[in-house]
Amino acid sequence: ARTGIPEAVFAEGKSLSHLHDVIRDHIDRNASLLITRLTPTQIDGLRDLPLSVDDLGRTATLEAPEPDHDAPVVAIVTAGTSDLSVAREAEVAANFMGLRTELIADVGVAGLWRLEAHLPALTAHRLIIAVAGMEGALFSVLAGLVTAPIIAVPTSVGYGVAKDGSVALGSALGGCAPGVVCVNIDNGFGAAAAAAKILNIAQAL
Amino acid sequence: ARTGIPEAVFAEGKSLSHLHDVIRDHIDRNASLLITRLTPTQIDGLRDLPLSVDDLGRTATLEAPEPDHDAPVVAIVTAGTSDLSVAREAEVAANFMGLRTELIADVGVAGLWRLEAHLPALTAHRLIIAVAGMEGALFSVLAGLVTAPIIAVPTSVGYGVAKDGSVALGSALGGCAPGVVCVNIDNGFGAAAAAAKILNIAQAL
Amino acid sequence: ARTGIPEAVFAEGKSLSHLHDVIRDHIDRNASLLITRLTPTQIDGLRDLPLSVDDLGRTATLEAPEPDHDAPVVAIVTAGTSDLSVAREAEVAANFMGLRTELIADVGVAGLWRLEAHLPALTAHRLIIAVAGMEGALFSVLAGLVTAPIIAVPTSVGYGVAKDGSVALGSALGGCAPGVVCVNIDNGFGAAAAAAKILNIAQAL
Amino acid sequence: ARTGIPEAVFAEGKSLSHLHDVIRDHIDRNASLLITRLTPTQIDGLRDLPLSVDDLGRTATLEAPEPDHDAPVVAIVTAGTSDLSVAREAEVAANFMGLRTELIADVGVAGLWRLEAHLPALTAHRLIIAVAGMEGALFSVLAGLVTAPIIAVPTSVGYGVAKDGSVALGSALGGCAPGVVCVNIDNGFGAAAAAAKILNIAQAL
Amino acid sequence: ARTGIPEAVFAEGKSLSHLHDVIRDHIDRNASLLITRLTPTQIDGLRDLPLSVDDLGRTATLEAPEPDHDAPVVAIVTAGTSDLSVAREAEVAANFMGLRTELIADVGVAGLWRLEAHLPALTAHRLIIAVAGMEGALFSVLAGLVTAPIIAVPTSVGYGVAKDGSVALGSALGGCAPGVVCVNIDNGFGAAAAAAKILNIAQAL
Amino acid sequence: ARTGIPEAVFAEGKSLSHLHDVIRDHIDRNASLLITRLTPTQIDGLRDLPLSVDDLGRTATLEAPEPDHDAPVVAIVTAGTSDLSVAREAEVAANFMGLRTELIADVGVAGLWRLEAHLPALTAHRLIIAVAGMEGALFSVLAGLVTAPIIAVPTSVGYGVAKDGSVALGSALGGCAPGVVCVNIDNGFGAAAAAAKILNIAQAL
Amino acid sequence: ARTGIPEAVFAEGKSLSHLHDVIRDHIDRNASLLITRLTPTQIDGLRDLPLSVDDLGRTATLEAPEPDHDAPVVAIVTAGTSDLSVAREAEVAANFMGLRTELIADVGVAGLWRLEAHLPALTAHRLIIAVAGMEGALFSVLAGLVTAPIIAVPTSVGYGVAKDGSVALGSALGGCAPGVVCVNIDNGFGAAAAAAKILNIAQAL
Amino acid sequence: ARTGIPEAVFAEGKSLSHLHDVIRDHIDRNASLLITRLTPTQIDGLRDLPLSVDDLGRTATLEAPEPDHDAPVVAIVTAGTSDLSVAREAEVAANFMGLRTELIADVGVAGLWRLEAHLPALTAHRLIIAVAGMEGALFSVLAGLVTAPIIAVPTSVGYGVAKDGSVALGSALGGCAPGVVCVNIDNGFGAAAAAAKILNIAQAL
Ligand SMILES: Nc1ncnc2c1ncn2[C@@H]1O[C@H](COP(=O)(O)O)[C@@H](O)[C@H]1O
Ligand SMILES: Nc1ncnc2c1ncn2[C@@H]1O[C@H](COP(=O)(O)O)[C@@H](O)[C@H]1O
Ligand SMILES: Nc1ncnc2c1ncn2[C@@H]1O[C@H](COP(=O)(O)O)[C@@H](O)[C@H]1O
Ligand SMILES: Nc1ncnc2c1ncn2[C@@H]1O[C@H](COP(=O)(O)O)[C@@H](O)[C@H]1O
Ligand SMILES: [Mg+2]
Ligand SMILES: [Mg+2]
Ligand SMILES: [Mg+2]
Ligand SMILES: [Mg+2]
Ligand SMILES: [Mg+2]
Ligand SMILES: [Mg+2]
Ligand SMILES: [Mg+2]
Ligand SMILES: [Mg+2]
Repeated sequence: ARTGIPEAVFAEGKSLSHLHDVIRDHIDRNASLLITRLTPTQIDGLRDLPLSVDDLGRTATLEAPEPDHDAPVVAIVTAGTSDLSVAREAEVAANFMGLRTELIADVGVAGLWRLEAHLPALTAHRLIIAVAGMEGALFSVLAGLVTAPIIAVPTSVGYGVAKDGSVALGSALGGCAPGVVCVNIDNGFGAAAAAAKILNIAQAL
Repeated sequence: ARTGIPEAVFAEGKSLSHLHDVIRDHIDRNASLLITRLTPTQIDGLRDLPLSVDDLGRTATLEAPEPDHDAPVVAIVTAGTSDLSVAREAEVAANFMGLRTELIADVGVAGLWRLEAHLPALTAHRLIIAVAGMEGALFSVLAGLVTAPIIAVPTSVGYGVAKDGSVALGSALGGCAPGVVCVNIDNGFGAAAAAAKILNIAQAL
Repeated sequence: ARTGIPEAVFAEGKSLSHLHDVIRDHIDRNASLLITRLTPTQIDGLRDLPLSVDDLGRTATLEAPEPDHDAPVVAIVTAGTSDLSVAREAEVAANFMGLRTELIADVGVAGLWRLEAHLPALTAHRLIIAVAGMEGALFSVLAGLVTAPIIAVPTSVGYGVAKDGSVALGSALGGCAPGVVCVNIDNGFGAAAAAAKILNIAQAL
Repeated sequence: ARTGIPEAVFAEGKSLSHLHDVIRDHIDRNASLLITRLTPTQIDGLRDLPLSVDDLGRTATLEAPEPDHDAPVVAIVTAGTSDLSVAREAEVAANFMGLRTELIADVGVAGLWRLEAHLPALTAHRLIIAVAGMEGALFSVLAGLVTAPIIAVPTSVGYGVAKDGSVALGSALGGCAPGVVCVNIDNGFGAAAAAAKILNIAQAL
Repeated sequence: ARTGIPEAVFAEGKSLSHLHDVIRDHIDRNASLLITRLTPTQIDGLRDLPLSVDDLGRTATLEAPEPDHDAPVVAIVTAGTSDLSVAREAEVAANFMGLRTELIADVGVAGLWRLEAHLPALTAHRLIIAVAGMEGALFSVLAGLVTAPIIAVPTSVGYGVAKDGSVALGSALGGCAPGVVCVNIDNGFGAAAAAAKILNIAQAL
Repeated sequence: ARTGIPEAVFAEGKSLSHLHDVIRDHIDRNASLLITRLTPTQIDGLRDLPLSVDDLGRTATLEAPEPDHDAPVVAIVTAGTSDLSVAREAEVAANFMGLRTELIADVGVAGLWRLEAHLPALTAHRLIIAVAGMEGALFSVLAGLVTAPIIAVPTSVGYGVAKDGSVALGSALGGCAPGVVCVNIDNGFGAAAAAAKILNIAQAL
Repeated sequence: ARTGIPEAVFAEGKSLSHLHDVIRDHIDRNASLLITRLTPTQIDGLRDLPLSVDDLGRTATLEAPEPDHDAPVVAIVTAGTSDLSVAREAEVAANFMGLRTELIADVGVAGLWRLEAHLPALTAHRLIIAVAGMEGALFSVLAGLVTAPIIAVPTSVGYGVAKDGSVALGSALGGCAPGVVCVNIDNGFGAAAAAAKILNIAQAL
Repeated sequence: ARTGIPEAVFAEGKSLSHLHDVIRDHIDRNASLLITRLTPTQIDGLRDLPLSVDDLGRTATLEAPEPDHDAPVVAIVTAGTSDLSVAREAEVAANFMGLRTELIADVGVAGLWRLEAHLPALTAHRLIIAVAGMEGALFSVLAGLVTAPIIAVPTSVGYGVAKDGSVALGSALGGCAPGVVCVNIDNGFGAAAAAAKILNIAQAL
């Protein structure tokens, strides 16, 4: 019965006292909880609470369920090492929603052989989350190489014209390789949620 | 063996003689073919060829395969009647790729009761393509009501700030209803291709 | 005689000494005063003065008049808890201008049932200020459900394409649900001023 | 009992045959109908039907109700003569929704005395729709002169940086004269709908 | 012989040691010097040098020449008090280039009577520098009231759609009041340089 | 008594019948009139009227006053031959406002020697209107070579990133050559009006 | 002596009579001439003149010099067949400037094997002009595969977010594959000119 | 054998511990390494490692190879002193890739004589990297004066409309001086890599 998506708290712009209240309330109810986009300052201010914090991914969880051993798997691929933060948000969120994950980092297209080395592994996957900022070409290239659908997560890594992720977003949406769908810039959480819904279809059959 | 996506011809900006050549070549080889984004002028110029033309969707097909009776189904929902052209492109393409389709038109959120009337039908579907221009709110609202993943297709219907579809695109990407993924503005074809890949995962299990 | 709008001081970019001068001058004259968009640093620097400060809303008032018991009421609705800061600016300003307010928080459309739970309350109101950043769909959905005119206040809450509030602004302006008017991003003060002018029309009859 | 807004058909991008069907259906049911944003070509193609067409405002109506003699009045002010088309859409729509209207054209601020000549008339009004493209300064100036709330309709009249109405929109939203609310660029219909809802509040008291 | 414009140093992005070198070199040569856009940190770091610093205008001068008693005069008008920083840059620069200045602050159009109170003074001037951020309407209104040419300086004061000065820039360029020319956002220096060149034409006759 | 600017009619978006009315009215009153931004279709439709039409500049005049023999002169410089249309609008308007003009065409900086050949002539002028689209570098280069103030008119000539004149506008505003002021893209009329006001200052001394 | 770049005429926005004059003048002087960005209408209007016209590339030449048999070669690669128009402009211009060219069309990355089939040929080239609109990923991928420098020409082919070439431009500039330089969207002429200058360096050694 | 481009590490957004790991690994392998876009904080955190740090250029190198005495030379020209940081990144990177460099600083076009003083030196060069932010006119002017190809590096120096380098980028791409190619805003590294590839062509002959 893995149909719905557990609601997550979006921490950005929330006060520490508000976050404390929400978390305490979940602790009291033994409820599980996922918090995303925590700032370093917020993470510091929550140190006294029994949370599992992921500094890189800027997430925290409470009573996170373990994915089943035979749970569906989603591959998470990053173009560069600077995209790892967003990939990590996707991974924590996917695990929280009951999916197993396999992370394949730093395969960006500037050196195509790195991608090719991972092709056998990638081909075996049924669904891929691809995370890229400065190397948005990854989305199109990957889609031309594998049959799995690809959820593109553009990241805000980059500068000049590529600042804030708009070029990566354009590459994800404007390419013509079929089978690529896209979520908001830096939205690892949203990619995980879509992955969970998509893989649940498969399970449901 | 429904793994790959048949390549389609993107007609925009191509000369009539080039299109003629490509089509004749497929006729000679008894090959099937999908052409998208035909202009009215191009459609006129191809009248002599044995194509199945869809004026509203601006598509043409050659030897289009019939979807199997038990093929997977994708629902295609539109917010307004002006979004029907893009929805029709999605439908023709999805059928061409072997999917059955159910079109539910004009359910936009400005009158929420219209959406609610279709909820039972929508809830039964495993995958939804949602097509909206001026009523991009549809993407978030739908995602909060059904468990199926939603492929959002923003359309370029609209004027003023909403001209060219940028507001609808923003609504598809920037909302926080989990389970919405997005393709390029007006890209019915891309939504169909993603739907085919996603439903093929399910079949493959 | 509630016709005009009392001028308010916009604090952003003003020096502490300038603000001190303005406030002292009002204290000396026993005049009432509303200050908006104070930074935390400015709030700190004004601690010695007899102001009513609202940290969340970033406002301060001096000799704020109490709204009459039978003063007109405006409902202030927020989509998410992160939108509360702007809602609070609207509330303080509306009270300062003689309106009573009812705050209904966190009813965003991602979970439509939360909005529905508040519908009876909302339907009873004659004017609604709706405040939303990541869930700009709220503006259209609300307008399709109630007969009251809606003053939309897009907020700068959000990230990626939704950063700085442009998607929320687009949703407020570009939707086609009739009865929605809009003020600048984060402009709770402007929404309150418009509400006061609108409700004064009603009173004046 | 003038609470709701009659739904209108948005003609842009709709086929003639679809429009014919909708209109015929309303004729058969003796129902009233408002159509907006008709192109000259569409207007030509509907010549055989018993519609009241307004070429300047690009509208058509069927069985438009006459506003009551004591119906509330909204003033419609334009900055330039090129803004008249949008003002006319607002006027037709407002009349259709039961409001009386008074049109005051070409009062733009480049010559402030023209505005001043109309001040006595304007001051008497309880609600003003202000329509401006190249002279968006009108919104702020007007709001500083009258106590009535102002619904700003930026128009797409203009060129260079002002092309497509974005400067006028910015003036409407970004000014700091309290009491101005805004609808989409060229959206005379939306301004009328908001005016009807606002004046209905007053009536309802 | 007031024909050329003395070169000024643009401090932004320059290192303290580089600025020190340039200033020392001018001190050694008894040369006059104007530095603009100093950050507070840079101002602190130059405290040991014999500069005339203007904190509000973020300028520093060395051996600034006094304008002649009969030097031409330029009026500098600001819409709001938050625009004073840019106005002050213009004033220091204009004085440095040999012009006398008259500053008229806080006359913004939201309250038109404030502008009217200054009209006699303004009418007497032969050239006006108008500085405005949130009240860009000032440019058009002023141009409709006086015969002097107006150099508009849009400022980056504002938020939401008006953030960074783009709305004020649009108002300066896109209005249709003849006689308004424009310089870059926040460019008080450039306005002064143009004023000096324009008034030198007059002198030269 | 050359103080004010004669009002001009902005033809874009006006109906032929409206233009006819305005012109007839001026003919009847023996009044002079300037019309700008006429489309070819409008020019055709006014053939029966006694107007002086300039097809290249898209202007028409009625009873245009001849500039005095000793009237002040403004130089009008264009970067490319494609910028001539806007330069011509400036010239007709300047003449209409009583200025003499000297046109120097096609001196763009891609070949700096062409500019240098005209330097002696340019140096002699007291005010320069510079018109450029693809070669916006002209504004800065010119300002570094002459002492006269420069009114920059960016044009919409160009393609790709330079389409619609935004690059030329940026060059005019964002350069750091002092003495350049700017009007809207393609606004030859506005440049002429500013020139008239500026040269009137000189006269008035 | 192949050092300079022969000046070309940019036809867009020029009148037929002006073009006639320029061409006649070159015919009289037996001078060679290159004209770019001709519209179909302009091409029609020049039919009577002895020009070599390329309809696809929208170019015309007069007395075009034949490249030497041992002239340097530049490869011109296109991602899609819709990019051929711009590639053709580059080819005609390169030939006109004395370069030999090899055109390799339709190798876009959506199907990576097509690119790989051409790799041996591409590897042999010393300079590559890459032309792509919807498949801007080509620039990065190519740069990761060959050692030759790449001149990227983004094209305006595409729709939605990719309309007008901005996504392709972003891919060319924002990727992180070293060795890619870029010219304006659709600027085949500029790419050819840069290629000529670059290959002349090599020759000059 | 100077064919490939050594991969460099892009420091922005990477954690100190990750950078430490990469550097240590290269030290252990005696491998050379180039790191770009280091923040001051990162530079501080790496003080204990045996790196050659360039604070101005924000680069660090390890075992940087010395360019050969007869290695090809690239000229690096800056418009202003504020552009030196990016020029320095280009210089360090070019040296690292085996090129000799000659830096010519502060020749911006606002004072054309400064550029002219350097013309003999510039004319002698075979390839020029031009670095400019507020004086993007430099790109076009230079291209009109020398026969060498020019690699333009727009910088993010500037404010108002020129903020973030978009005007400089537009000048680089949108001008019509042939022979200018462009890399991303602030991308000194990319310019060096392209220079190395281009000069290697020459060598290879
Ligand atoms: N990183 C994220 N990006 C987008 N949406 C999120 C993210 N994290 C949580 N959400 C959603 O944001 C909503 C919570 O917002 P709030 O009520 O402000 O805490 C929920 O609908 C979540 O599904
Ligand atoms: N000019 C207009 N601008 C914005 N919305 C409009 C306009 N005219 C009609 N509408 C709305 O558009 C919707 C009808 O869209 P459709 O179903 O496509 O005909 C209705 O909700 C109308 O209220
Ligand atoms: N080409 C032009 N560009 C900008 N403003 C213009 C132009 N031609 C005329 N105008 C101004 O436009 C206004 C007339 O607008 P209208 O009342 O619509 O005819 C006057 O204030 C003129 O000064
Ligand atoms: N397709 C093109 N794109 C960019 N610049 C061009 C093009 N064709 C010609 N040019 C340049 O445009 C200038 C000629 O402009 P014009 O004087 O208006 O004919 C010359 O400097 C040419 O090098
Ligand atoms: Mg990497
Ligand atoms: Mg509808
Ligand atoms: Mg919430
Ligand atoms: Mg007018
Ligand atoms: Mg003020
Ligand atoms: Mg030319
Ligand atoms: Mg192809
Ligand atoms: Mg300098």
